[in-house]
Amino acid sequence: MIRLLVTGGTFDKEYDEIGGTLFFKDTHVAEMLRLGRSRVAVTVETVMLVDSLQMTEQDRARVAERCLVSAETHIVVTHGTDTMVETAAHLARHVTGKTVVLTGAMVPYAFGSSDGLFNLGSALSFVQVLPPGVYVAMHNQVLQFPGVTKDRNAGTFVKERA
Amino acid sequence: MIRLLVTGGTFDKEYDEIGGTLFFKDTHVAEMLRLGRSRVAVTVETVMLVDSLQMTEQDRARVAERCLVSAETHIVVTHGTDTMVETAAHLARHVTGKTVVLTGAMVPYAFGSSDGLFNLGSALSFVQVLPPGVYVAMHNQVLQFPGVTKDRNAGTFVKERA
Amino acid sequence: MIRLLVTGGTFDKEYDEIGGTLFFKDTHVAEMLRLGRSRVAVTVETVMLVDSLQMTEQDRARVAERCLVSAETHIVVTHGTDTMVETAAHLARHVTGKTVVLTGAMVPYAFGSSDGLFNLGSALSFVQVLPPGVYVAMHNQVLQFPGVTKDRNAGTFVKERA
Amino acid sequence: MIRLLVTGGTFDKEYDEIGGTLFFKDTHVAEMLRLGRSRVAVTVETVMLVDSLQMTEQDRARVAERCLVSAETHIVVTHGTDTMVETAAHLARHVTGKTVVLTGAMVPYAFGSSDGLFNLGSALSFVQVLPPGVYVAMHNQVLQFPGVTKDRNAGTFVKERA
Repeated sequence: MIRLLVTGGTFDKEYDEIGGTLFFKDTHVAEMLRLGRSRVAVTVETVMLVDSLQMTEQDRARVAERCLVSAETHIVVTHGTDTMVETAAHLARHVTGKTVVLTGAMVPYAFGSSDGLFNLGSALSFVQVLPPGVYVAMHNQVLQFPGVTKDRNAGTFVKERA
Repeated sequence: MIRLLVTGGTFDKEYDEIGGTLFFKDTHVAEMLRLGRSRVAVTVETVMLVDSLQMTEQDRARVAERCLVSAETHIVVTHGTDTMVETAAHLARHVTGKTVVLTGAMVPYAFGSSDGLFNLGSALSFVQVLPPGVYVAMHNQVLQFPGVTKDRNAGTFVKERA
Repeated sequence: MIRLLVTGGTFDKEYDEIGGTLFFKDTHVAEMLRLGRSRVAVTVETVMLVDSLQMTEQDRARVAERCLVSAETHIVVTHGTDTMVETAAHLARHVTGKTVVLTGAMVPYAFGSSDGLFNLGSALSFVQVLPPGVYVAMHNQVLQFPGVTKDRNAGTFVKERA
Repeated sequence: MIRLLVTGGTFDKEYDEIGGTLFFKDTHVAEMLRLGRSRVAVTVETVMLVDSLQMTEQDRARVAERCLVSAETHIVVTHGTDTMVETAAHLARHVTGKTVVLTGAMVPYAFGSSDGLFNLGSALSFVQVLPPGVYVAMHNQVLQFPGVTKDRNAGTFVKERA
């Protein structure tokens, strides 16, 4: 059994056709699990729907708290990529004994050419087999915290040099 | 480093707009890896492009041989779901010391609402972390061979009862 | 006000993920009108859902009868391309005083890369402004019956040579 | 023969996956004509790629000039919906003897659930059969200028009351 905590991010952004801007309405995770024909029990919990640039320390504490109280020991967190590293570092300090995998997308799922479905399939797989710890799974890679930074120019994540 | 062996299956079927039938042209795997923004080294090798109902024992021997000679010890095989169990059982008998994960799709990738991208993300993740053995990864599940059958009515895979 | 008569054809075919074949479930026309944000009153009537190769003379008579009894004088008919010419010729002999535009698709709407939405937008526009008569609208062209044949190799429609 | 003048608008916007914003790269019109399997000769000319809120009087003069010098007498103009009415009014004052149809989209073509393909099919059809004049074709409707305003709340176009 897996708990999936939704926090928003590019993953769940939509296009507001009147204003011409991006916004959040609902998470697409349930639809994506249907499309992926998932047969693993996944409990989806929307913690918040925010752009990760707007995420506060209070928000990160709330995500950590939801991981701590989760009955499931395998947890996937969808998250914006801009501050995914900060949240993962926070979780690595406060959550132990559980496998937590953060994932996100470079392009909104609703926009057709998204990497979201690929990343969700990846995160939900890594979380089933990795030992307890906090990880980010994107771009077909999995990296464990602490020790990961974002390469903002490349839009990806890399291991910190020793 | 991962080797990805393409054998065809629903995954790679396309619609022939003149004849109104389904056929194979090329694999979509490279395009899917681009969409998933994969940053893991994946060598794609098209072994064959067939409907798995047409797959012969000779074909299965050829897939096993490609696994055996592969320099990479982490191998993903895309395959039609109809005889995926037969090929996996064959590989389980002939390939040792490597992690081989078979995956496929219920709907062609080219048809928009496919589970293919989700399954590919899943298979490429499981293959990185599972110990040597032969597995099928579909529907967010991973099952190890021998001991797996297809539930044809549900269109999924299940553990054989002891 | 426009009446839209659905007869099936490639337009409305879907992929049966258990059997791996193409079949009809429901028409996608209402969804397509929503996607096109149509603000013209269109009454959708499903006359039948068949592959046009299976269409009988009785079926064609039924389409003609639905055109004749329609309160609307502007009628779009969705139809498989294989025998679209035969049905259009039949309608041209039996329906007068109304503008009837047949359209279809080379690729099912459900398959993502379909020409269906383009053709539907085209047919619904031609039908509003053309004088009474029977036409086929596909490939951005409109051709009036009688005098049109299908070029089966090119998968398109052409004017008959005098 | 039809000339298609591209000016940008929602139609051609794309998602910048590094910055998370919308921007213009190239027009998608050629790809859309391929998808629609257009068999009518359409000459595509990119006049500019701008958000129509940024369009200046100079820009509108340039669009009018491109209409005036066009060898084709049937012209489609893709345009953002925010100031489509202003450009159409400008064209109605300066371009005579040609059929000019403006169209656009509520959602970018690249985002999958766009009305763009429907509107393009519609505009390319209306332009072939309407008498000279300036029109906007969206939402399955065609309205002639002058005498049209935008209903900003509904995101559509309506006839001005006398």
